This record gives sequence, C-alpha cells and structure tokens, in this order.
Amino acid sequence: MIQKVLLTISYDGTNFSGWQRQKNIKFRTVQGELEKALGILLKTPVELTGCSRTDKGVHAEGQRATLLTNSTIPPERLPLALIPYLPDDIVITAAEKVDNQFHCRYDAKNKTYEYKILNAPSRNPTLRNYAEYVRGRLDIEKMQTAADLLVGTHDFKAFSAVGSSIPKSSIRTIFDIDVSKRENLVIITVTGDGFLYNMVRIIAGTLIYCGMEKIKPEDIPMVIESGKRAKAGITASACGLTLKKIRY
Amino acid sequence: MIQKVLLTISYDGTNFSGWQRQKNIKFRTVQGELEKALGILLKTPVELTGCSRTDKGVHAEGQRATLLTNSTIPPERLPLALIPYLPDDIVITAAEKVDNQFHCRYDAKNKTYEYKILNAPSRNPTLRNYAEYVRGRLDIEKMQTAADLLVGTHDFKAFSAVGSSIPKSSIRTIFDIDVSKRENLVIITVTGDGFLYNMVRIIAGTLIYCGMEKIKPEDIPMVIESGKRAKAGITASACGLTLKKIRY
Repeated sequence: MIQKVLLTISYDGTNFSGWQRQKNIKFRTVQGELEKALGILLKTPVELTGCSRTDKGVHAEGQRATLLTNSTIPPERLPLALIPYLPDDIVITAAEKVDNQFHCRYDAKNKTYEYKILNAPSRNPTLRNYAEYVRGRLDIEKMQTAADLLVGTHDFKAFSAVGSSIPKSSIRTIFDIDVSKRENLVIITVTGDGFLYNMVRIIAGTLIYCGMEKIKPEDIPMVIESGKRAKAGITASACGLTLKKIRY
Repeated sequence: MIQKVLLTISYDGTNFSGWQRQKNIKFRTVQGELEKALGILLKTPVELTGCSRTDKGVHAEGQRATLLTNSTIPPERLPLALIPYLPDDIVITAAEKVDNQFHCRYDAKNKTYEYKILNAPSRNPTLRNYAEYVRGRLDIEKMQTAADLLVGTHDFKAFSAVGSSIPKSSIRTIFDIDVSKRENLVIITVTGDGFLYNMVRIIAGTLIYCGMEKIKPEDIPMVIESGKRAKAGITASACGLTLKKIRY
C-alpha cells in the first residue's frame, strides 16, 4: 500500500547548489542526493516534494520533504537506514507517516529562519561558511527596534530580490523577529507564514544596515511602503542563513 | 634591523594535516601556508616558530608563532597585509613586536583548549567538523565532578597517547576544567601549563565516559595513579578540539 512519508532534514549547504534537483547532474543538490540515497535503499526511483527551495550555501536544521512509497520499511526506521547511503553533509533527523492529502509546502503554517552574523575585529575561519562577517560594531538595540517594525502583515516587495519571478502576492505576515547577541555572534531569528525570494537575507542585510546606522530604524515603515528594493539594505550572504523549523 | 614578531593565528583545521610544516609538500599544513604567504609578502623565505603543534583536524583561535624579519612593514599591519596571500581557512588576528629573547613555546605560561561535544538525538551536519558527537545523554554534573579531580599537578601518563615520544616528564598542572552545556553542545574548557600528546582529547574522552557512566568520577584519582592509558577513556575526535588561548 502506498503511503506518504514526511522527512525532517538537516544539511550543511556549503557544498550544495541549493535544495532543488537540477537537470544538469554536475550541480550537487540536497534533493538530488536524497533521492539517490532513497532510490538505493527502497530499490525504486523516488521523487521528493520539498517544502523550501533553499539557495546555494544556505543551511537547514528543519527542512521538510515528502515521498510516496510502498516500501515495508517502517518510516521511523528511515533516518538510521539511510545513513550508509547519504553524504555526511545531510542527516535525516525524523520520518513519519502522514495523511495522503498532506502537502508539505501548502500545509506549512509558519517557518523559522535564523541568520548569523560574526561581529568581531577579525574573521573566524571556522565560521566562514556559517555566518556573515561584519567588522564594525553593530548596535543591537537599533537592530531590534527596526526588527519590531517589520513584524506584522505587510507588502514585502521592497524585501524581495529584483528580477525574481513575481508571486501572486507579495503580502506576507512576520510573526516575530528576535535579535540577540552571544559573545561575538549576532543571531536574527525570523518567524513568518512565508517568505519571498531572498526575503530573509534582505531583512538581515537591512537590520545590519540599521545596526551600522546606515538606515534609521524609524525609516523602516517608509522602506516597506516604498516597495523599492533599493531602499532596503544589502542581501546578506547565503552562508549566514539556516532554515530552522517548519510548523504544520 | 632584525626584529621578532609574534603572530596570533586562527584556523579551521579541517583541511590541514595539522600545524607543522612537512617535507612532503602534498600535506597541506598551517605553518606551510603561513610561511608561503609571508614569503610572498616579505619577499624573502620565512621560517616560523610555532607554539603548539596542533594535529590534523584540530582548530585554533589563539595559536601563536614568531618570525624574525627585517621588513619595514609595521607588525600591526601584517594581519591585513597578509589577507590576499592567505587561504580563507587561516586568519592572522594580531601581530606585535616582541623582545628578541622571547620564545613563543618556552615562554608560554598556560594554554586554554576548548572541546565541543554535540549531545543530541541526531547528528548536525554543520557541526560535523567542529564537534564530537554523542547520542546518549551525558550527565554534565558527573563530568564536572570528574573534571575537578583532574585539576592540579599530576603525572598525566595515563592521559597521553601510547607510543608517543616520551617527554622528560609527564607531570603537568591543570589549573581549571569547566564543563558547561548550551542547548545541545557540551563544552569542556581546559587550562593548564602544558599538555602531553593527545592529552586534552583523552581528557575529553574520559569525561565523556564519566558522562555516560562508563567510568565513575570517583575513580579518576585511581586512573591518574595507574599511569595506564587503558584506564582512561577514548581519545575524542580531533575535530572537537580548539586551541583557544596561549598566555605569556
């Protein structure tokens, strides 16, 4: 009997051309590697439906994807059973049977991303693939003030990549943005019902500009209102971003 | 005029065969890469004297090394000037002129190492090169009790690699060991006047065994007294270890 299985997936995005499988096999993708491993284990071609199309260099602790399978392997055994077939930069942390009507993208209620910034006099080589680097001191309070002004339901057009395929609507709801500092690491945690292309990285870049006093926090409503990408801050590097959690 | 310059160096040990330059150039070493970069910048062959010979896979935030140079570049400019010639897994964080009598190895008063353990139900791919992984729950209190019994001046023969070249004395002083937990990461911070070969990794492995209740904390004095490597725990993986600081 065919059943739908929901996987929870962690990966180090450094050596991947993003989540999504590409036709040209010279691009190593998370979806591609997972489908290959599942194909060997289940002895049949597998196609995954992923929740978030993370970009090249972006990491995940809680990516989700589903597969349809008639395998007799109990889903909860898949994480361990797949280890021998997966590269060491992908780990399946959970697998569970879900209703056949369940859709891991459309049924997602909200998602949490984390953005890390090393704010220190020198770079740290062990963080070079895991955090954006900012040398000058960031004003965390200003960043949090600006973050609070981004929370809510807004048209986030100014916070989406120019030239990205235009979705039906650029209105999204951000439930919470928290800016915290732990030693030299500034961590931005964003939860929302969905995100436009590059939206979290542009939010991070805009908050960095607020922390550097290049943008005033009180100007954030005007940036949103303008709908103009140029009014927001830079697109912070992909490597600082981690997809932490998707909730259903 | 020849002057001696003391460098403070950070590196990600993942892609290095350790600190020490090797004759066979196919082994990529931190010292080798640094000497190459300095040689280009200073336009003359350079030989570094390093403080700690970190192993393959071990990281550093505060490695120290000296060079003798008659360059007119002010030492404090070296960190920035070297960036174009260094790979992105090495960063010089400071450089200062020191007395010509100064020896970065013999004059070190004490060193601090940090050992990281991911203690979680699943591996985390972004930590695979930066932390030892232990699935079963570690008892932090038991680890700290054992750690306290290692502090002091002891013959640490039981905590040195079998077959390693025997130093004149295996007596060392550990000033402090702290075991802390932050989310899923257990961090062991060890400060001592010096360490035998693999000593910090064997201490970490022994504390892990105490946390897993494979060794009783109260047996630690007996392990030290025995002088037998087999009485201590495993040698924890190199990747969990970071040389944090050397004090003079």
